[in-house]
Amino acid sequence: MKRLLVVSAHAADFVWRAGGAIALTVAQGGKALVVALSYGERGESGELWKEPGQTLERVKAIRHQEASRAAEILGADFLPLDLGDYPLRVDEGAQERLVEVLVDFAPDVLITHTPRDPFNPDHPVAYEVTERARQLATGSGVASAFRTVRPPEFLLFEPHQPELCGFMPDLFLDITPVWEKKLAAMQVFASQGYLQRYYAERAEHRANHARRISGWPDIARAEAFQRVLPQVVRSL
Amino acid sequence: MKRLLVVSAHAADFVWRAGGAIALTVAQGGKALVVALSYGERGESGELWKEPGQTLERVKAIRHQEASRAAEILGADFLPLDLGDYPLRVDEGAQERLVEVLVDFAPDVLITHTPRDPFNPDHPVAYEVTERARQLATGSGVASAFRTVRPPEFLLFEPHQPELCGFMPDLFLDITPVWEKKLAAMQVFASQGYLQRYYAERAEHRANHARRISGWPDIARAEAFQRVLPQVVRSL
Amino acid sequence: MKRLLVVSAHAADFVWRAGGAIALTVAQGGKALVVALSYGERGESGELWKEPGQTLERVKAIRHQEASRAAEILGADFLPLDLGDYPLRVDEGAQERLVEVLVDFAPDVLITHTPRDPFNPDHPVAYEVTERARQLATGSGVASAFRTVRPPEFLLFEPHQPELCGFMPDLFLDITPVWEKKLAAMQVFASQGYLQRYYAERAEHRANHARRISGWPDIARAEAFQRVLPQVVRSL
Amino acid sequence: MKRLLVVSAHAADFVWRAGGAIALTVAQGGKALVVALSYGERGESGELWKEPGQTLERVKAIRHQEASRAAEILGADFLPLDLGDYPLRVDEGAQERLVEVLVDFAPDVLITHTPRDPFNPDHPVAYEVTERARQLATGSGVASAFRTVRPPEFLLFEPHQPELCGFMPDLFLDITPVWEKKLAAMQVFASQGYLQRYYAERAEHRANHARRISGWPDIARAEAFQRVLPQVVRSL
Amino acid sequence: MKRLLVVSAHAADFVWRAGGAIALTVAQGGKALVVALSYGERGESGELWKEPGQTLERVKAIRHQEASRAAEILGADFLPLDLGDYPLRVDEGAQERLVEVLVDFAPDVLITHTPRDPFNPDHPVAYEVTERARQLATGSGVASAFRTVRPPEFLLFEPHQPELCGFMPDLFLDITPVWEKKLAAMQVFASQGYLQRYYAERAEHRANHARRISGWPDIARAEAFQRVLPQVVRSL
Amino acid sequence: MKRLLVVSAHAADFVWRAGGAIALTVAQGGKALVVALSYGERGESGELWKEPGQTLERVKAIRHQEASRAAEILGADFLPLDLGDYPLRVDEGAQERLVEVLVDFAPDVLITHTPRDPFNPDHPVAYEVTERARQLATGSGVASAFRTVRPPEFLLFEPHQPELCGFMPDLFLDITPVWEKKLAAMQVFASQGYLQRYYAERAEHRANHARRISGWPDIARAEAFQRVLPQVVRSL
Repeated sequence: MKRLLVVSAHAADFVWRAGGAIALTVAQGGKALVVALSYGERGESGELWKEPGQTLERVKAIRHQEASRAAEILGADFLPLDLGDYPLRVDEGAQERLVEVLVDFAPDVLITHTPRDPFNPDHPVAYEVTERARQLATGSGVASAFRTVRPPEFLLFEPHQPELCGFMPDLFLDITPVWEKKLAAMQVFASQGYLQRYYAERAEHRANHARRISGWPDIARAEAFQRVLPQVVRSL
Repeated sequence: MKRLLVVSAHAADFVWRAGGAIALTVAQGGKALVVALSYGERGESGELWKEPGQTLERVKAIRHQEASRAAEILGADFLPLDLGDYPLRVDEGAQERLVEVLVDFAPDVLITHTPRDPFNPDHPVAYEVTERARQLATGSGVASAFRTVRPPEFLLFEPHQPELCGFMPDLFLDITPVWEKKLAAMQVFASQGYLQRYYAERAEHRANHARRISGWPDIARAEAFQRVLPQVVRSL
Repeated sequence: MKRLLVVSAHAADFVWRAGGAIALTVAQGGKALVVALSYGERGESGELWKEPGQTLERVKAIRHQEASRAAEILGADFLPLDLGDYPLRVDEGAQERLVEVLVDFAPDVLITHTPRDPFNPDHPVAYEVTERARQLATGSGVASAFRTVRPPEFLLFEPHQPELCGFMPDLFLDITPVWEKKLAAMQVFASQGYLQRYYAERAEHRANHARRISGWPDIARAEAFQRVLPQVVRSL
Repeated sequence: MKRLLVVSAHAADFVWRAGGAIALTVAQGGKALVVALSYGERGESGELWKEPGQTLERVKAIRHQEASRAAEILGADFLPLDLGDYPLRVDEGAQERLVEVLVDFAPDVLITHTPRDPFNPDHPVAYEVTERARQLATGSGVASAFRTVRPPEFLLFEPHQPELCGFMPDLFLDITPVWEKKLAAMQVFASQGYLQRYYAERAEHRANHARRISGWPDIARAEAFQRVLPQVVRSL
Repeated sequence: MKRLLVVSAHAADFVWRAGGAIALTVAQGGKALVVALSYGERGESGELWKEPGQTLERVKAIRHQEASRAAEILGADFLPLDLGDYPLRVDEGAQERLVEVLVDFAPDVLITHTPRDPFNPDHPVAYEVTERARQLATGSGVASAFRTVRPPEFLLFEPHQPELCGFMPDLFLDITPVWEKKLAAMQVFASQGYLQRYYAERAEHRANHARRISGWPDIARAEAFQRVLPQVVRSL
Repeated sequence: MKRLLVVSAHAADFVWRAGGAIALTVAQGGKALVVALSYGERGESGELWKEPGQTLERVKAIRHQEASRAAEILGADFLPLDLGDYPLRVDEGAQERLVEVLVDFAPDVLITHTPRDPFNPDHPVAYEVTERARQLATGSGVASAFRTVRPPEFLLFEPHQPELCGFMPDLFLDITPVWEKKLAAMQVFASQGYLQRYYAERAEHRANHARRISGWPDIARAEAFQRVLPQVVRSL
């Protein structure tokens, strides 16, 4: 019964990149929480801005509704911090807020963006704030002067241009059992048909890679992740 | 019930570096096989050569006896290939022999040396022959013209000078439950007291690192490994 | 009017990975030559070996026919060296043969496999022999005791598991104008339907990446490459 | 007819490192704009400060005059932002100013400093602000809520200590046709005779490297650059 | 007669990681200064906080006393900046203060933390401020508008989890002659028995590595460092 | 009184790249030996082959005379192994010969080519054979079954295209006191005027870099090297 925390720079990022991990964790009896640092209201809502007379508040409301619905389909709670995007800015208060979320939720697994992304100014910011929150919340593993939690596993999900982001996958997760759920969550974002198709194909490619690596013939869909920290295990 | 295959350049390498992994796998109901490419009769038997009138055959016999005994304590079968050391040379026949061993044993996990070691000319050779055997034995995962096996996980064990060998641990194995067994196996090599102490201390250091990473307070001894290939899993 | 030389470890590799580059070069008035070091008769003809009573010679003949046909569709000449696969072995004579091919054909662009591929023992061999042939054929750019040619640009094409092969694309080629030709060439390999679909989707993904990088909206299909050597230009 | 934008941390950096690229682009019918974030009035005007009674304003005025003159010789417009040096600090307003410059000028090629330079505290700042401006100005390539431009190619010019700055050239530009112009622009900075000689010799060395790579015998002077992003092309 | 400056994020870091280097430099007639950016009063004083009614001021006073005592044993001066920890924050004033210390002390050798440490949020901050102070204090080696000093050698000391911090040792210092002093300094921190043992064993391991590299049989204890900048020498 | 061994792939390589190190070591009372694996008779004697009726034996004789003369000027002994070039091939006997040379000469410092050089097929071979000889001659630092020597420091000298060879200098040697000797040795190779000028300018550039790093104003000429192994020292 794992607890999974996903930190998403914009409202929809978690669906394309970790939707399977969320749905699988929940399906296996775990609990998932999605923190959205912003709604992506400026940089990732191009379609909505084509409507005449569009306003920032309305765009944010639509994005809120969509992301909540997608999280619900996947079985996750959804916590928006509404910090603004393009550029996303995280002040000291927001940083402390995220530390509190970590300490309160006490995740076993923590997932966010890669530290580098030459096509998105906000993704690296999401990494920085998440990494810093992890360090402050776990207190280096020693008893100390403030509330801390057991250190979670720390993963990065797959970015849109993996090589340009220095993404080096070292973990493939078989999401075949929950594929229909991820598909349904992606379809919530009706105006982004291309991304649905891209990530559906990507799930098949990663499954193909995973089959070649493992020899398990039944992996039909997979998500790729990169570990930030070594894994600690009780058996090989 | 995992099957573990360890390929060791010299007769004793597997004890210091993967003795815990072997003993743990066996203790958990698995099966372990150690392949020793050479006895280390020239380059790693300095103490034995101090005896006047020493011969190559006698050194190899002593090394065989010690390594067999250590493997037995850990619960592993021991298969020496006696290919010579300093330098270790692997011809086509020996390469094919190792492919056969892989296909016959069909390991779930395969462990060997790092591809680089500036203080040992034989360790990289052991990596090369093992990596090649793995590729030929698994046939790229596709049905083909020759006998193949399901691809094993492929790990590197910790070398004596980790940084100089480019070793980057990403897997810590808690070997606390079988520590006494590893200690006993190390003590078989009576003349190498320094190494016993070095690797005993190293097991505590790696346990300390693993505790800081995982927050699990009961890890008292650990071994470090590096994955060559991504991990494929069914749940986070 | 560029001259393009592609060195392929097995008979079909060039189609999936550089079929667009070949067809485009030819369509733009250039000339292309494909050298196949082996037919991939053992490691990459799994379907053919399912037929009862199959023989090595027959498999090679079928592969020859398919690869020649694919090359013809793309507009390239096809030169098989038939050196055997799994493992591919290149002796001194074969190495010299490739040097001669380079000197005779005098390519402007040379493309082959990545130097690393943990799921294929032959691809790195193809890189090694090609890199060595390039060095010997170009004579380090100085007048010397043997026949040499002007140094070609040297590229690597995209492997099936890019990250595992250390592939870092730094060149995206728009192959939209010749996409139908690449598709037709891929369809020659009737029994490998999955690969046709994989590389068709991949071409769209790489096109999407290329559009984001360049802002050119009309790129519908692309191939990715990695330069081994710096580029030399007359204008930015 | 390319549009080239060079962002220079101090008033003279662009001359030594991209003077040839600027002059060549202009000579080929293009347009060039140099943005100088500071005048280098504190850290790179040592000679001027030897004059008794020297003032900051006077140093900046001299540097302005020199840099404008050098830009004029090369054919570029010169836009100084006067943000101060050692350390150079870029606040939100200055960051937005640079975004505006990018959107207004709409460059095809953008060049700046390397992200690392252990002997200059200001060069990495110039990289950061330029990279961020590029990301905000191109809006990730998607239609969105603010003014954007087509993504330019993004290059780094050669720093004074290339290896210490992690500079890895992958683009050599033949600047032979405009060498006299670059020489004249360098000579504007009369008090920095050493740098004139250093970069004149460097241009010959890079030309030698470029000749060996390309086999083109007529390259007599070259500049080296490193691409931050992959190249997108329509033909090999 | 070397002058050594060690910048420590927390009050005790310098003892475990550079205690030998400090004692040796002093023993050889040099001078050493330790700057502690914080007392580590929150994140590294877990034992002290177990005492009921503990206060921040009292923790800092105890840490001050211990660190001063340890520095004294090693022969170094101790300068605490008391900037706070977890997180350590360095504002412009503190940054300038460190520049002044550098210019006043004019070290031949400067040592601090690695730029990366996934288990400590303050260590990278210590690196950043030290690196920046070095650059501003040395003025890029050119005469300029402000006070500067001759550039010191710049080293990183060994972190607790070397591989996770990207630490790559390229300098082993034989600290055998001053080992007793380092031991005594470590024993000042009575409540941290584990660290005393860890770093005592580590000194033996690094000595073993150093013996294998150099062939010098008398190295019994060593410390490992990583150079940030190339070394400049008058003889091999 | 250091002993320096330089292993050169072709007869002249040692002069351009380590001539200063050799002359300086000798001037400081040390001893130097140059091993030339080949004469570079095919790939690096282009000028000589322009003479009508030229023969391989004559080219080798001229190269022998020149290289011996240059070594003499620098103060080194010269030992040619005449193994052939383009390609240089080192069989088992030649490998053992080099091990013997190492054991007999017992160098304190060992210098050779970089392991990578995309413009020279022989330089990486020289690295491989030298690295292997070092490992076999030093016997991993343990007493063993064969003659061994104390491990030397192991350096790489600067290649002609440093970045393409992955050369990362971390050691600058001030060769100002012996510059005239290096110049004279370079002038022996009368037909290679360009290289004389290139390496003369390079010595000034590296001196400039070294001055900026060290602050030592009197370095007028320098050579750059890269350490393969960590340095072991008795004082900072």
